[in-house]
Amino acid sequence: MDELKPCTANSSPLTPLGFLERAATVYGDCPSIIYNNLIYTWSQTHRRCLQLASSLSSIGITRGHVVSVVAPNIPAIYEAHFAIPFTGAILNNINTRLDARTISLLLQHSESKLVLVDYQSRNLVVEAISLFPSDIKRPPLVLITDHTDHDNDNKSSQTVDSNFCCTYESLVTKGDPNFKWIRPQNEWDPMILNYTSGTTSSPKGVVHCHRGIFVMTVDSLIDWSVPKQPVYLWTLPMFHANGWSYPWGMAAVGGTNVCLRKFDAAVIYKMIRQHGVTHMCGAPVVLNMISNLPRSEPLRNPVHILTAGAPPPAAVLFRTESLGFLVSHGYGLTETAGLVVSCAWKNKWNRLPATERARMKSRQGVRTVCFTEIDVIDSESGLSVSHDGASLGEIVFRGGSMMLGYLKDLTGPANVGVIHADGYLEIKDRSKDVIISGGENLSSVEVESVLYTNPAVNEAAVVARPDEFWGETPCAFLSLKAELEKKPTEKEIIEYCRARLPRYMVPKTVVFKEELPKTSTGKIKKFELREMAKAMGKSKVSRM
Amino acid sequence: MDELKPCTANSSPLTPLGFLERAATVYGDCPSIIYNNLIYTWSQTHRRCLQLASSLSSIGITRGHVVSVVAPNIPAIYEAHFAIPFTGAILNNINTRLDARTISLLLQHSESKLVLVDYQSRNLVVEAISLFPSDIKRPPLVLITDHTDHDNDNKSSQTVDSNFCCTYESLVTKGDPNFKWIRPQNEWDPMILNYTSGTTSSPKGVVHCHRGIFVMTVDSLIDWSVPKQPVYLWTLPMFHANGWSYPWGMAAVGGTNVCLRKFDAAVIYKMIRQHGVTHMCGAPVVLNMISNLPRSEPLRNPVHILTAGAPPPAAVLFRTESLGFLVSHGYGLTETAGLVVSCAWKNKWNRLPATERARMKSRQGVRTVCFTEIDVIDSESGLSVSHDGASLGEIVFRGGSMMLGYLKDLTGPANVGVIHADGYLEIKDRSKDVIISGGENLSSVEVESVLYTNPAVNEAAVVARPDEFWGETPCAFLSLKAELEKKPTEKEIIEYCRARLPRYMVPKTVVFKEELPKTSTGKIKKFELREMAKAMGKSKVSRM
Repeated sequence: MDELKPCTANSSPLTPLGFLERAATVYGDCPSIIYNNLIYTWSQTHRRCLQLASSLSSIGITRGHVVSVVAPNIPAIYEAHFAIPFTGAILNNINTRLDARTISLLLQHSESKLVLVDYQSRNLVVEAISLFPSDIKRPPLVLITDHTDHDNDNKSSQTVDSNFCCTYESLVTKGDPNFKWIRPQNEWDPMILNYTSGTTSSPKGVVHCHRGIFVMTVDSLIDWSVPKQPVYLWTLPMFHANGWSYPWGMAAVGGTNVCLRKFDAAVIYKMIRQHGVTHMCGAPVVLNMISNLPRSEPLRNPVHILTAGAPPPAAVLFRTESLGFLVSHGYGLTETAGLVVSCAWKNKWNRLPATERARMKSRQGVRTVCFTEIDVIDSESGLSVSHDGASLGEIVFRGGSMMLGYLKDLTGPANVGVIHADGYLEIKDRSKDVIISGGENLSSVEVESVLYTNPAVNEAAVVARPDEFWGETPCAFLSLKAELEKKPTEKEIIEYCRARLPRYMVPKTVVFKEELPKTSTGKIKKFELREMAKAMGKSKVSRM
Repeated sequence: MDELKPCTANSSPLTPLGFLERAATVYGDCPSIIYNNLIYTWSQTHRRCLQLASSLSSIGITRGHVVSVVAPNIPAIYEAHFAIPFTGAILNNINTRLDARTISLLLQHSESKLVLVDYQSRNLVVEAISLFPSDIKRPPLVLITDHTDHDNDNKSSQTVDSNFCCTYESLVTKGDPNFKWIRPQNEWDPMILNYTSGTTSSPKGVVHCHRGIFVMTVDSLIDWSVPKQPVYLWTLPMFHANGWSYPWGMAAVGGTNVCLRKFDAAVIYKMIRQHGVTHMCGAPVVLNMISNLPRSEPLRNPVHILTAGAPPPAAVLFRTESLGFLVSHGYGLTETAGLVVSCAWKNKWNRLPATERARMKSRQGVRTVCFTEIDVIDSESGLSVSHDGASLGEIVFRGGSMMLGYLKDLTGPANVGVIHADGYLEIKDRSKDVIISGGENLSSVEVESVLYTNPAVNEAAVVARPDEFWGETPCAFLSLKAELEKKPTEKEIIEYCRARLPRYMVPKTVVFKEELPKTSTGKIKKFELREMAKAMGKSKVSRM
């Protein structure tokens, strides 16, 4: 038995990239992408991805390079999920909502070799590049034009100027459709780089390998029971943990990707009607959006909606389901490549009262089938906490879709939660430093580090304040320096942050205190501040 | 980027064994197994498997040992799929239809450390053990009794005598339900040993590792789009390539396993009605059985049936589907751990005439999503054949579920097929030496090797003859030795084989020839013999 070893026949690297080739065979003349008046088939998408990969290769992109994409959910970013790794390079999706300074830091940190830029982000990225120190090489920019976007058809913004080397479409057009894509030499080869948040001091670049993305993709299909040829509406940004792996998943099942540059509830309902949408994902804020639309009527056919990023409020769950959506709830991190905990639903829970049902569903749940282990442990003893729904501990992960690691960094995430008697996990405090605003995780430590750069600030602590629309917004507690001639106002602090942080990270509330509450070891008692922020009630006029 | 390596958090071995633990959490009080008047829940199955594993461990079964099972589709064999690997040991399912001599050879070849024996196979296995040479250690036998089986309640056959060390149920009962199962140290550790066929000279033991079985299991769930909590009827023997991985798959999706000791069409329809069966697998002979039952009426709810093992005849497909079964067709080998080719159905084919539809569906199809590559190559040049539906070549495989290798053997399988212009594979000649009878692959070479031991036989060649019930049966062409005083009759040859081969391998037809046709290099022209056997028409009275 011992002489039996892995060989070439059985150890070809696990990767999701082969899904596209198969989709072109099986679903060749079925729609792969629908976007405005554009429809591609799986044959066309396969061909376009090979062509793009061929062009990228011919301009020198190769194994181990990072290629970045700054774009909303348009066809180009979908294609990038295959075409960039087809060259051996690493795909780096960048959040379009970041500020130029942060994007500049990410591009420098990742040593990105090329950036694909949606025309609406052109000024942002050009500015980001201009912020590069003069001794650091600037990556060339490729402009993604969009002539289907009639609402925003600003001609000049779609023209290649000296900041750009060419258009995205020209790369696709001149590429070779018979390009042989570069298979990973090893399934542990990096394939994806995602930044968990843009920060002054320490951008955290999560690196995933081919094997991890493969495992996450098949796990996500099984966990959500995705059938063949679903119609998938892209309400979840692909730059957000690579759309929880569904770009690759849709190729596996021959789904139709309905792409969207931007959306509101009316657009969602229109797409559902027009294209027969069957599946969509989004943070609870999306559920809130669709369940709050006046005159919204029940769906003709059920639509599966998968939510994560924050516990969906029971009332929102209830309203959404009563409209005909079938809500599934899960939990994951950029570090796990997608959802690795899901609130696996039990038929017997259907007999519970509505509020109790919503309470059960708002728990994060159990590990997904392909993930190895999730536990909540006492940070001091390292032992599992009791399964009593009350004993708090740190959430720890082990499984095939865990990241390879952080690029140039070593620390890891630390969230806390409980495990109920039935084995279902619930996140109690997402961790002392995480605020979830509109589905985006933001680190309070990063906001604090900016506040600390203000000369007037003595101590700063940022916690979550409940918000009617965003779920939570950052609330800053500050003590000011004693010797100040002129104390800053709340508005001045907010403006100070605006100049230095992405908008969603800017505190919406600022509270000045003589002194911040501290533990005996001198640490700020965030728990107390969180209670204070909660006691202020929900913030209201905070649309960003 | 280069410093990022696999670590303990992301490289825990891929294995399907964790599916059971999760099923106990998520589906704890849902039925896992239904068998006669017995119903287990997933909590109970989890507990029973841990108890059995604990008892096996305590009697010395450990990492790397082989434990064999000789049983039909009863709860014990289902439990063995988890409990045996839980001890670190390797599960070896043995075909209950084999003869004692073959079973003896397999137990010796595998160096089996323990055999779980269904009471109906007790004499067979006791005889197999008695055939061990005196210098080879005999494995202890465990008797699986069955008191739900009222039709066959022969008391004495269910009693432990000196041939057995204990009953299966006593092992379960005395085991520790808190046993910590032994995780594989490495995902390439062997988990499964399957024999492709029992043979005189060279039993082929296919070894699969944890990783391979994991990949096959998730692939099978995705390819067949298996939903949560299906009701799965066990018409496919679990000893047949481990039921194409669905024992583990059912734990992943919390399905109900409807077990069956034996069945005919009436039993199948009864189970479908009684338990709301949604899914079942079987060779085309099972389709034939259910579509031929007189008075069979359309199903109330559609039942998904997955068939493989031989191309389903178009007429049988048509009849089966018209009764309300949704037929999927695939192809795999014991060497691939399950189906790695499937005839992925295209909606547009629904518009074809029924005969054309059946023709499309009788093709084996395209590789499954998680498998890496299947190709048909010219054996001499090693290049892919044209995709023209006519160019024959050898079928070659590469993917995560390919076996680790053969135990103590090096040769591999070689089947031939074509690839159609649309990329779909069709097996044309299953290979020169394979006959498929009732879904069992049997090697003509093995039958020939027995015929060659008959002193009257000069040359022997065995090919497939079409058979109304079994699909194919072995047909032997013989030339006899010249100096014979008395020539054997057809009946005598058949009886000679019966004494030396499992029943399904015994030729149903024997043809005597002066000389067998040969190529210029002296090889027997099997193709010509196959044409002759075909020209005889279908054999009819061949129920075994």
